[in-house]
Amino acid sequence: MNSFGNIFRISIFGESHGNSTGITIDGCSAGLPLLESDFTADLDRRRSGSKGTTPRKEADLPRIMSGVFNDFTTGAPITIIFENTNTRFKDYEKIRETPRPGHADFVASKKFGGFEDFRGGGHFSGRITLGIVAAGVIARKLISPIKIKAELTEAGGIKDIELALDKAIEEQNSIGGIIECTASNLPTGIGEPFFNSVESMIAHLVFSIPAIKAIEFGAGFASAKMKGSDHNDMFISPEGKTETNHAGGINGGISNGNDIVFRVAVKPTSSIALAQNTMNIKTGKMTELKIEGRHDLCIALRVPVIMEAVTAIVLADLMLVEQRIKRVYLK
Amino acid sequence: MNSFGNIFRISIFGESHGNSTGITIDGCSAGLPLLESDFTADLDRRRSGSKGTTPRKEADLPRIMSGVFNDFTTGAPITIIFENTNTRFKDYEKIRETPRPGHADFVASKKFGGFEDFRGGGHFSGRITLGIVAAGVIARKLISPIKIKAELTEAGGIKDIELALDKAIEEQNSIGGIIECTASNLPTGIGEPFFNSVESMIAHLVFSIPAIKAIEFGAGFASAKMKGSDHNDMFISPEGKTETNHAGGINGGISNGNDIVFRVAVKPTSSIALAQNTMNIKTGKMTELKIEGRHDLCIALRVPVIMEAVTAIVLADLMLVEQRIKRVYLK
Amino acid sequence: MNSFGNIFRISIFGESHGNSTGITIDGCSAGLPLLESDFTADLDRRRSGSKGTTPRKEADLPRIMSGVFNDFTTGAPITIIFENTNTRFKDYEKIRETPRPGHADFVASKKFGGFEDFRGGGHFSGRITLGIVAAGVIARKLISPIKIKAELTEAGGIKDIELALDKAIEEQNSIGGIIECTASNLPTGIGEPFFNSVESMIAHLVFSIPAIKAIEFGAGFASAKMKGSDHNDMFISPEGKTETNHAGGINGGISNGNDIVFRVAVKPTSSIALAQNTMNIKTGKMTELKIEGRHDLCIALRVPVIMEAVTAIVLADLMLVEQRIKRVYLK
Amino acid sequence: MNSFGNIFRISIFGESHGNSTGITIDGCSAGLPLLESDFTADLDRRRSGSKGTTPRKEADLPRIMSGVFNDFTTGAPITIIFENTNTRFKDYEKIRETPRPGHADFVASKKFGGFEDFRGGGHFSGRITLGIVAAGVIARKLISPIKIKAELTEAGGIKDIELALDKAIEEQNSIGGIIECTASNLPTGIGEPFFNSVESMIAHLVFSIPAIKAIEFGAGFASAKMKGSDHNDMFISPEGKTETNHAGGINGGISNGNDIVFRVAVKPTSSIALAQNTMNIKTGKMTELKIEGRHDLCIALRVPVIMEAVTAIVLADLMLVEQRIKRVYLK
Repeated sequence: MNSFGNIFRISIFGESHGNSTGITIDGCSAGLPLLESDFTADLDRRRSGSKGTTPRKEADLPRIMSGVFNDFTTGAPITIIFENTNTRFKDYEKIRETPRPGHADFVASKKFGGFEDFRGGGHFSGRITLGIVAAGVIARKLISPIKIKAELTEAGGIKDIELALDKAIEEQNSIGGIIECTASNLPTGIGEPFFNSVESMIAHLVFSIPAIKAIEFGAGFASAKMKGSDHNDMFISPEGKTETNHAGGINGGISNGNDIVFRVAVKPTSSIALAQNTMNIKTGKMTELKIEGRHDLCIALRVPVIMEAVTAIVLADLMLVEQRIKRVYLK
Repeated sequence: MNSFGNIFRISIFGESHGNSTGITIDGCSAGLPLLESDFTADLDRRRSGSKGTTPRKEADLPRIMSGVFNDFTTGAPITIIFENTNTRFKDYEKIRETPRPGHADFVASKKFGGFEDFRGGGHFSGRITLGIVAAGVIARKLISPIKIKAELTEAGGIKDIELALDKAIEEQNSIGGIIECTASNLPTGIGEPFFNSVESMIAHLVFSIPAIKAIEFGAGFASAKMKGSDHNDMFISPEGKTETNHAGGINGGISNGNDIVFRVAVKPTSSIALAQNTMNIKTGKMTELKIEGRHDLCIALRVPVIMEAVTAIVLADLMLVEQRIKRVYLK
Repeated sequence: MNSFGNIFRISIFGESHGNSTGITIDGCSAGLPLLESDFTADLDRRRSGSKGTTPRKEADLPRIMSGVFNDFTTGAPITIIFENTNTRFKDYEKIRETPRPGHADFVASKKFGGFEDFRGGGHFSGRITLGIVAAGVIARKLISPIKIKAELTEAGGIKDIELALDKAIEEQNSIGGIIECTASNLPTGIGEPFFNSVESMIAHLVFSIPAIKAIEFGAGFASAKMKGSDHNDMFISPEGKTETNHAGGINGGISNGNDIVFRVAVKPTSSIALAQNTMNIKTGKMTELKIEGRHDLCIALRVPVIMEAVTAIVLADLMLVEQRIKRVYLK
Repeated sequence: MNSFGNIFRISIFGESHGNSTGITIDGCSAGLPLLESDFTADLDRRRSGSKGTTPRKEADLPRIMSGVFNDFTTGAPITIIFENTNTRFKDYEKIRETPRPGHADFVASKKFGGFEDFRGGGHFSGRITLGIVAAGVIARKLISPIKIKAELTEAGGIKDIELALDKAIEEQNSIGGIIECTASNLPTGIGEPFFNSVESMIAHLVFSIPAIKAIEFGAGFASAKMKGSDHNDMFISPEGKTETNHAGGINGGISNGNDIVFRVAVKPTSSIALAQNTMNIKTGKMTELKIEGRHDLCIALRVPVIMEAVTAIVLADLMLVEQRIKRVYLK
C-alpha cells in the first residue's frame, strides 16, 4: 500500500515526529552516477522557511543507506533516510479529543484504533514527500533528456502570489493554489492502454500527495465545453506534432510526442492559526479550537518540486516497462 | 498492465472488432448470489442506440465462463465474456495512413510497431468498458449497503442536455460533458495513507476510461481559491459528519463517513462526421479526412454507469484490504 | 492470487466441470506469430487417453478470444478459452460428506464455506493447467532460441515406466513419479537477487501445479551431503561455462549460462479405484469410500509438458524484466 | 523485485559491506506490541561466532526507523535498519578477475555491468537475511498462537553435527546440511488455489535465501515412489486431522489443519579456505585461488531461524489475505 510502480518501484515509510522518514527505490538501473549532494537543489525547493511556509526548520539531510557504491547506482535497492531532529510531542497530545477540521487526525484515529502516531500528522504528514522528492531526482537522471518543470500559477485565487501571501499572513488564514506541470522532449509511445495510462499513473501519484484535490490534463475541464472539431489537435508533422495540445500530450493513455501538461489544485492547509469551532468527540460538545504548532499558510508554495518528482517517477517506470515491448521479440 | 486492484483484482482483455471483450475478477468473496441477468440493467445504461450515441448495435450479452456455481460465486476467478457480433473491417483499413486527430490510432501504431488491431480502436476501444460495467455490478453487491449514483450534469457546456444533443446532431459535431458521481452510506476508514488513497485509486481507474481528461474531489479546483477557514468542514457529530463537504468525503486519503463526491470531464469524441484536416503520415502531406464508421456524438451520455462501476470496484478492493487491519491482531 | 508474473503476466480461471477453463497472458510483446494450431503439439502431450491416464476425453480446443490480429500478437492481453464438453455432476455430489483422502475437496469446502464448485475438483482441478500449457507455447516463442525439455525419469519408484504402469493397472492403485527439466542455450544474468531468483520463480509456479510435492535444482538434496571443494563448479571458459553443474545453472538466483536443471516429485493421484477408509464429516463415523468418476493412475505422465511450460513462462517474464537493466540508462 | 507478499509485504535492501542492511514491513496491523529487544533472541540464533561459523563479528543491532509509536505498531510501514560496522574492502577487490567458483560474484558482475557492490557478495550476501529474521519476529506475533520450529537434522551427510563440524574444520572445507521446519497449531483454509498455494509461497521465499537448493513438503521426494493407497492420509477427525501426514499439512495448496512440514537442503558454502582452481576471466588462463576474508564452514547452522522467519512471513500474509474471504460478504 505504501509502494508504487511496476519496475521503478518506490516504497515510502516514516512519520513527521518519529525517528525518520525515508524511501526505498527498487528497480533502478545500475550505472547511474549518484551523490548525496545531487538531492540538495530539489530538497531546497521543497524546504520551508520562506514567507508563507512553516517556521519548523529541519536539515532534511539525505543519507543513502544502500544501493550506491563508488558513487554509482548498483542495481540493488536504494534506501534514503531523513532523520527527524526538530520534533515535538506536547502540541499534538492535547488536541486528540478535538480533531482539527479538514485534517486526517480524525480518520487516522478511527482507522488505526488509536494506535496511530498522532504527532504532526504522523505517517499522513507532508514530510513523507521528502523521499518522493529524492526519488524524483533519481528518476530525472534515468529519463534524461526529458525535461519537467512545474510552477505555482496562482494562490488564493489571484495570479500575484506575493500579494496573496501578504493577505494570508494578515488574516492568519491559509490559502490554496494551482500548479501547472509540463514534461517536454518526450518520445511517443510511453504508457500502456487502460490501467497504466500516463494519466492514470500520474493521477495516482498526484492524489497520494496531501492537499491535492483535483487534476486536469491538457484542456481538462474545459474539454467538456468544447466541440470535437475544436478539441481535436491537428497533426502538423509525421512524427505526431500537433498544432494545438488540448490532449495534454496523451492519446489513449499513451504519450504522443507533444508536451505532457497537467494542472492540479492544492487546497488551503487545514491547520490555521485562526480560532475555529470543532466538536469534542468524547463529549459530543462543540468547542473552540486554537491550533498551536507550526504550520504552512500556503503549502502550495512547496508543491511544484513534488509534482515534478511524481511526474519523473511515473515516466521512469513507464519507460522501463516500455523498453520490453520494443526489444525482446523484435530484436 | 491490464490488471488493477490489490485483492478485488480485475483484468481486462479484448478488442472492438475482434472475437470478444471480457474481464476476469479475482479475489471476489465466495457466496455472493450472481446471475447473468444481474448485469442487464447496468449494461443497458451503457448501451448505444439512443439519441446522440452510435448506431452500431451490439447485443452485449454477458457469458459467465467461470467462478459461479449454482448461482453463487465460488471464490474462484469470475470470467465474463462479451462476444462481438457486429464488426467491420473496411472502414478502418483505409484510414491507417491518415490518422484521426485526437484519436489513439497514431500512438497505437507507433507503440506496437504496426501490429495493433486497428479496427475501431482495437484494444483502445470504449467497448472494453463492458467488462468494467460487469465488474461494477459484482462490486456493488459486495459493498452493499453503500449506494453509488452518477449523472451527466452538463453537455456541450450547457445544462439542458436535450438541447445540447440537438445542436450537436445539427452541426454533425461531437460534444463533451461533466459527470458527477456520489457514493453514500459509507463507513469511516476506507483507503490507505499515501499510494492507496481513495482519491488515488478512483483517479487511477477513472483515467483508464477513454475520453476522461479531468477529475476533482469535493470542492476540487474551487479549493485553490478558498481560505482554510472556509474550506475546513466543521464536525457536527462524534461520528464525523460535517456541515459542509468540501473534502468530498475524504481526508488524508481515507473516507471520513460523509459522501464521496467527484466530478469528471469527458472530452468530445474525436471521431466526427465533419470533414477535418489531417496529415498523411507516409507522404507528410496534409489531406482532408472524412470519417465513416459509426460513432457517438456525445460519449458522455454512456459514461455515468461506468463511473459508478469504477467507484464500486475501488471501494470493494479497499474494503477487502481494510478488513485485515481491524481483524487479525485485535480479534 | 490467480495471477503470476511481473511483466509477462498470466491469469488463470475456470473449473473442471464448469463452462470453461482459460488463461489471459498480459505483457506479451507485439509481433509474435501465433495461430491456434500452434498449441496443438503441447496440448496433445498433456492430453489423457493413453495407458495410465483418465478415460475422460476432452477435445481441449483452444480458442483465442483477444490479443491476436492477422496471426500476430498485438501487444494487448491474449485470452485463450477451453470450453468443457464432457462434464458430469452426479459422480461428485454424493461424495461431499465423505471427502476423498489426499484430495483438496475437504479444504476447499472449509475455505469457501461450501460454495466451491465441487465437481471434479472445481477450480483445484488439473484441467486448469490447460491454460498454463498454452501460455508456455507463447513463452517459448518469446524466449527462442532457448530450449526446454522435460521427461519422466521414473514412475512408482522404477525406471521402466511401462512396467510401472502395468503394475499400477493390475493393482488398481495410483503411482507417483520424478520429472527432470532442463533449459539450455541460456544467456547469463537472468533472474534477480533475492525474491525474484530463478529458483524462487520456478519453484513458485511448479508448486502451483497440483500433485507436486518437491523440487531440487542441480545437485539438490545431494548438495547437503557434499563438501564445498566438491560442490563448487569449476570455470572452464571466460563466459562462465563450468566443468560440473551442481548449481543447476544458477548462482545467487541468477542464470550463469550453464543449463538450468531441476527435478520435481509428483505424488500418486489421490483418487484411486481401490476401496479406502474415510470419515463421514457429518456423522464423524468411519466409512468405506469407493471412488467412481474417471481418474489418472499416473498423473506424472502428463506433467512433463507442464514443467516445460512453467519454465518458459518464468524465463519469459525474467527476460522481459532483465531487458530494462541493460538498456535504459546505459544506452 | 526486492519485495514479497500481498498484504504483509516485505521489502529488503542493503549490502554486506555497505552502510547498512534493512527491511520495510508494510501491511502489518496496528496495535501489535513491539520493542527493539523483541528481535534479540532470533537475531542471536542467526549470529555467527560459534564453531563452524565466520569469525566476522557484527553487533546486528536493529533500529526501528518508523511504524512504531509508544511501543506498538501503528499500521504504517515498519522500517528496521542494521548498520554495518565491521566491513572490509581489500579482501574483495583483488579477486574480481578470478571469480570464486560456486559464488554469485561472476553473475553479479555480468548482470550489473561491473557496477555491483562486490564487497563480500554485496546485495547477494547472507547479511540481507537480518531483515528477514526481524520480519519473522513481527510475523510470529501476528499469527500467534501458531508455533514454528526448525532444526538442522544433519550436516555433511551425518546426523552427529558436532562430529561433522570437527571434520570440516580439520579439512578446511565447507559442508552442507538438511533443515526441517514444522508449523503447528494451524487453522484449516490458509493459502489460495494455484499461484498462492502455501507450498508456492513458502518455496518462493525459501529459494530467495542464499545456499538453498531443494525443498520438499511432507513425504516430498519419497512420494514419487509411493502408491496412492499408501500416500493418502486417512481422516481421523471431522476437523480434518489425519493419521499420517504425507501431505505435509497441505492439500490443493491449502492448509488442512495438520502440521505443515518441509525440509530444505543447504549447499556447502562456496567460499572455502582450501586452494581451488579457477579461471582468470580477463586472461582466460587457469589459476589457483586462495580465498581470504572470513567465511562460514557450515552456513546451515545459521539457517533454521531464517526458515522459521520465512514460514511466519508467508503465513502472516496468507492469513491476512484469507480474512477477507470469510468476512466481507458473509458478515
